[in-house]
Amino acid sequence: MKQTVNIAVIGAGRIGRLHAEHLAHRIPGVRLSAIADVNKQAAVECAAAIGVPKALKEHRGILEDPEVQAVVICSSTDTHASLIAEAAAAGKHIFCEKPIALDLKQIDDALAAASSAGVKLQVGFNRRFDANFSRMRELVREGAIGEPHLLRIASRDPAPPPIEYVRVSGGIFLDMMIHDFDMARYLVDDEVAELYAVGGVRIDPQIGKAGDIDTAVVTLKFVGGCFATIDNSRRAVYGYDQRAEVFGAKGMVTTENNTPNRIRLSTGQTVREDLPQYFFMERYTESYLKEMNAFIECIREDKPPPVTGLDGKVPVVMGKAARLSYEQNRPVALSEIS
Amino acid sequence: MKQTVNIAVIGAGRIGRLHAEHLAHRIPGVRLSAIADVNKQAAVECAAAIGVPKALKEHRGILEDPEVQAVVICSSTDTHASLIAEAAAAGKHIFCEKPIALDLKQIDDALAAASSAGVKLQVGFNRRFDANFSRMRELVREGAIGEPHLLRIASRDPAPPPIEYVRVSGGIFLDMMIHDFDMARYLVDDEVAELYAVGGVRIDPQIGKAGDIDTAVVTLKFVGGCFATIDNSRRAVYGYDQRAEVFGAKGMVTTENNTPNRIRLSTGQTVREDLPQYFFMERYTESYLKEMNAFIECIREDKPPPVTGLDGKVPVVMGKAARLSYEQNRPVALSEIS
Amino acid sequence: MKQTVNIAVIGAGRIGRLHAEHLAHRIPGVRLSAIADVNKQAAVECAAAIGVPKALKEHRGILEDPEVQAVVICSSTDTHASLIAEAAAAGKHIFCEKPIALDLKQIDDALAAASSAGVKLQVGFNRRFDANFSRMRELVREGAIGEPHLLRIASRDPAPPPIEYVRVSGGIFLDMMIHDFDMARYLVDDEVAELYAVGGVRIDPQIGKAGDIDTAVVTLKFVGGCFATIDNSRRAVYGYDQRAEVFGAKGMVTTENNTPNRIRLSTGQTVREDLPQYFFMERYTESYLKEMNAFIECIREDKPPPVTGLDGKVPVVMGKAARLSYEQNRPVALSEIS
Amino acid sequence: MKQTVNIAVIGAGRIGRLHAEHLAHRIPGVRLSAIADVNKQAAVECAAAIGVPKALKEHRGILEDPEVQAVVICSSTDTHASLIAEAAAAGKHIFCEKPIALDLKQIDDALAAASSAGVKLQVGFNRRFDANFSRMRELVREGAIGEPHLLRIASRDPAPPPIEYVRVSGGIFLDMMIHDFDMARYLVDDEVAELYAVGGVRIDPQIGKAGDIDTAVVTLKFVGGCFATIDNSRRAVYGYDQRAEVFGAKGMVTTENNTPNRIRLSTGQTVREDLPQYFFMERYTESYLKEMNAFIECIREDKPPPVTGLDGKVPVVMGKAARLSYEQNRPVALSEIS
Repeated sequence: MKQTVNIAVIGAGRIGRLHAEHLAHRIPGVRLSAIADVNKQAAVECAAAIGVPKALKEHRGILEDPEVQAVVICSSTDTHASLIAEAAAAGKHIFCEKPIALDLKQIDDALAAASSAGVKLQVGFNRRFDANFSRMRELVREGAIGEPHLLRIASRDPAPPPIEYVRVSGGIFLDMMIHDFDMARYLVDDEVAELYAVGGVRIDPQIGKAGDIDTAVVTLKFVGGCFATIDNSRRAVYGYDQRAEVFGAKGMVTTENNTPNRIRLSTGQTVREDLPQYFFMERYTESYLKEMNAFIECIREDKPPPVTGLDGKVPVVMGKAARLSYEQNRPVALSEIS
Repeated sequence: MKQTVNIAVIGAGRIGRLHAEHLAHRIPGVRLSAIADVNKQAAVECAAAIGVPKALKEHRGILEDPEVQAVVICSSTDTHASLIAEAAAAGKHIFCEKPIALDLKQIDDALAAASSAGVKLQVGFNRRFDANFSRMRELVREGAIGEPHLLRIASRDPAPPPIEYVRVSGGIFLDMMIHDFDMARYLVDDEVAELYAVGGVRIDPQIGKAGDIDTAVVTLKFVGGCFATIDNSRRAVYGYDQRAEVFGAKGMVTTENNTPNRIRLSTGQTVREDLPQYFFMERYTESYLKEMNAFIECIREDKPPPVTGLDGKVPVVMGKAARLSYEQNRPVALSEIS
Repeated sequence: MKQTVNIAVIGAGRIGRLHAEHLAHRIPGVRLSAIADVNKQAAVECAAAIGVPKALKEHRGILEDPEVQAVVICSSTDTHASLIAEAAAAGKHIFCEKPIALDLKQIDDALAAASSAGVKLQVGFNRRFDANFSRMRELVREGAIGEPHLLRIASRDPAPPPIEYVRVSGGIFLDMMIHDFDMARYLVDDEVAELYAVGGVRIDPQIGKAGDIDTAVVTLKFVGGCFATIDNSRRAVYGYDQRAEVFGAKGMVTTENNTPNRIRLSTGQTVREDLPQYFFMERYTESYLKEMNAFIECIREDKPPPVTGLDGKVPVVMGKAARLSYEQNRPVALSEIS
Repeated sequence: MKQTVNIAVIGAGRIGRLHAEHLAHRIPGVRLSAIADVNKQAAVECAAAIGVPKALKEHRGILEDPEVQAVVICSSTDTHASLIAEAAAAGKHIFCEKPIALDLKQIDDALAAASSAGVKLQVGFNRRFDANFSRMRELVREGAIGEPHLLRIASRDPAPPPIEYVRVSGGIFLDMMIHDFDMARYLVDDEVAELYAVGGVRIDPQIGKAGDIDTAVVTLKFVGGCFATIDNSRRAVYGYDQRAEVFGAKGMVTTENNTPNRIRLSTGQTVREDLPQYFFMERYTESYLKEMNAFIECIREDKPPPVTGLDGKVPVVMGKAARLSYEQNRPVALSEIS
């Protein structure tokens, strides 16, 4: 019989509630014992809706509870690094939403804290658990396409976020392409040596006024010789566009967008299909469930987490390199960033 | 605020547990208060696993509970009709797994009981809630393809059931094609006047010795003039095959099988995709959830159920007509069956 | 070096001109020496346009020419059988457009004439040479899907022919479904024992007044146990629809319609593709060229023709059986037709 | 009645014979009067096989013939520029295979010669006439996707050319990606301002020893703000890979590779399709015919050619810029090249 894992969630926003629901009802062998939010009311409502025994304002109540074995950090980004340090000090295993921080020193400190405490730290790059991308990775690792030579990622949102969000987001490379940097490392299974970024404001001049761009293309050179291109747009009118292709010495693997159905309508004018799933909550529903299952499993079976602290750090380095490359219009080596 | 619906499940087998899990955790505004099974141990284990307050051997404990508003009947087929009558007499709304019965008199009695008691009766033709087929129906009803002229259904299982099951199944037309008869009526939105069935034993001679066939094709004539063909096979080696196509005066709508991912692998030999989802538990996962949501909604909002008692009866009539047609090798009018 | 085949075409209508162009310019090792048409002017114009040395009113001028080794019969259907007999008597190899005749006695006589003269006779079922259907047949024969259990053919024209044509066409089963009867035999590689036909007038009441139907579905039972369904419609608004699917013990092979391009347009509303190729001249362009190449090759290498006289006869028998089945609403064995 | 265009072909190699066959038999209203090749025997054999009246060793015999209105230059690349100048001086319209030259001064001189002589000059970028790419361009120009923001081109050969060819090819950017540079300009309908190239030797070390690379990725910045990526590989084991995608403010248009058929085979292991068409002679068959038709039409109707001399020059500039960018690992403005 499997050991029950006692776990608590910190942060009762959208993603916190999502994880809480999964932990409460859809992951066997777990006891979700508490949820905390600086907005106490949010914690109380979430606990009531899902059926969590305890709702707290203070995360310390969780960290001091000796029954709690692990925490899921879903609070605002600026609190992630310090919460990791506190949780590690309290001996709790940690699942932390991305990004750990936008400051590399803070990231390093958080990683060191988790490491010296000997607790597990998994970072929430959920797309790795998507059925398309995990199958793609599996095929690449099995050698189905041989040595990878080229990777292409198209990653486009259905609509830009509110301009207030854009202002504090850290910019397209750290807010949006960060996921694709992780995906590139995951699919090619290698580290990036250098990158080159171009981009501009094509969708909304307000984004430009906020100091950001809304359209970007980055070229990556991997250490092992693979080249990759990633493109981002803040607005794909046909919906969330999340595709990748790896080309190698022995073949190619591609993936298409998921669609809500497999219907084709043929009329006197065209053959039509319905649009892809609209945004990340639809597209990545299952991947959120799978990443949490994987976290619970790594605790229970004492295995290394499938997305490590380093996996949380490197995409931030790449985002900073991409911004620098874009600003100076030149290739930037990752080693320049520290 | 929505009224909470108090509901209980009768039958703790595979499909009973599935509905119980959905009612317990994934359908808001529901209280799953009890589960009963003639095998008391099964009820107890299911209740413990899912967190249902009460586990019973006797369904009467449920029907006598004035708090319970509705029951979900998932017991063995031979008990469906009498349970409907009892539940109706107790004033409970009823969701009943298909088929209601294989005897038309029993079906008529059950329908009459529900009707005279004024309770809602929904039959578990879950495929109507599949994203592909419900979208197809919607397009047909919107007039996207004009008046339907032709319908084609391919419905093939990945592997035959155990031979012991085949013996008591009622035969391929009542056990397997019954779903497709319902689907045909649902997609074309009309009644069938006459049908013609052919079939044989192509997969396993044991199925023939058990008095059944494993491969069958039925042609339907709808009252309104549409023609349909349905084919069934007990073994599609590539997995569960569930496709339909409606062709009409203004166009055509088709649907492909769902696949676990949208990966394509190109090698020096071929372009490959992964096989379709294996069987009904994978393919129709979401449709089970949606049908139960629809049942709860029809109780809460006092609407007619989306799959009625008559919808439960007609496919049985069609199954009997198909068997007769196959045995006598001639077209059979549905009016011949009573 | 390959021997040059001296050939002549009888009939300068659309299909005659098509074959003449192929023979003149696109098939190596052939000398197209003459073209004849009862409308002398048509023959003259065709000869001038394509560059054929001789244009005749009388086909006898061709048959009496000792240089001519083979004839391509593209005149009106009622002349086919007697032209085959004459050409056979003259010792010419024969390519004859379908159908040989609608009268079985005439067909038998024509076949006997070719057989006793020892000349090759190929019938123009060009769809067998389509890249999709020939690949499908190849896969079936290779055993890629094991023993065939089920075949489905959808065969739908983009628009009905003129009503004058309908009146003399022989009816949908002999005019249109005859191609699909041939395709069914070709794909399953077996003979049909019995069939059952349903149909009606759904598109144009004028077709009904002309004594024909415009929508039909036929179920076939093959001798070896395979079942097939064929559906025909005289009007698919989205264009020519020519698809087949063979399902067997070890798998399934399907084919989609050809399209003029592989474009997909994603907008805020839908994902769209262009319609399939419009009609047979677009869809089967290459197959006309390939069938004639095959005819030349069977002459040059003294091989049996890939579509025999018997292949020309059986679909006519099936068409007659289908008409009888439709009229009497009962299954009809092919052995009933003679 | 259309005027007959008298035309001659210079160069009887593979591409010369292809154009000659099209002009002789498949393009109406054309008289192919002569073919010349420095290898007289090649010219004679080609003329005999296709039925061209005159075969010459010297192209001057063609240029001096007052009946000849136009020439098709298919000789070796190093002769293109001077042949254009000679043909222009003789008042002949000119179709010239790409590239015009690898030296920009030679290109400019050739363009000036054609311009001052007032003759039409069309360059053989045949891919513009491919059904996929011409439809894509049409949709972009119609505004179906709004203003273009992103373009992605994958262009990969099935196998590298012989190493002897690689040595004299001018390198991957001028020999292979030159077609994609043209395609990028054609699809986006704008000029490129700057580009950045990366690449390496991943397939065959011999290619590296010959001073070239076999894998390359280039990022383009268009004047109007669109970004593009092009990737090239000398070996895609699954066959010729020629795909593009344009993403814009109002949608996206993509194209898939052409395949020899539309077959799908489902077995117990996978769903399989046949590989894409193998190489350019299969994939671009129709486009060669269409480009020549377009050339004849521009002569006959006195219209500007669809691929101009400038269209022949700019991709050479881009190829040189890409090589420089690759060598210096920095973005290069096209204005740097002259």
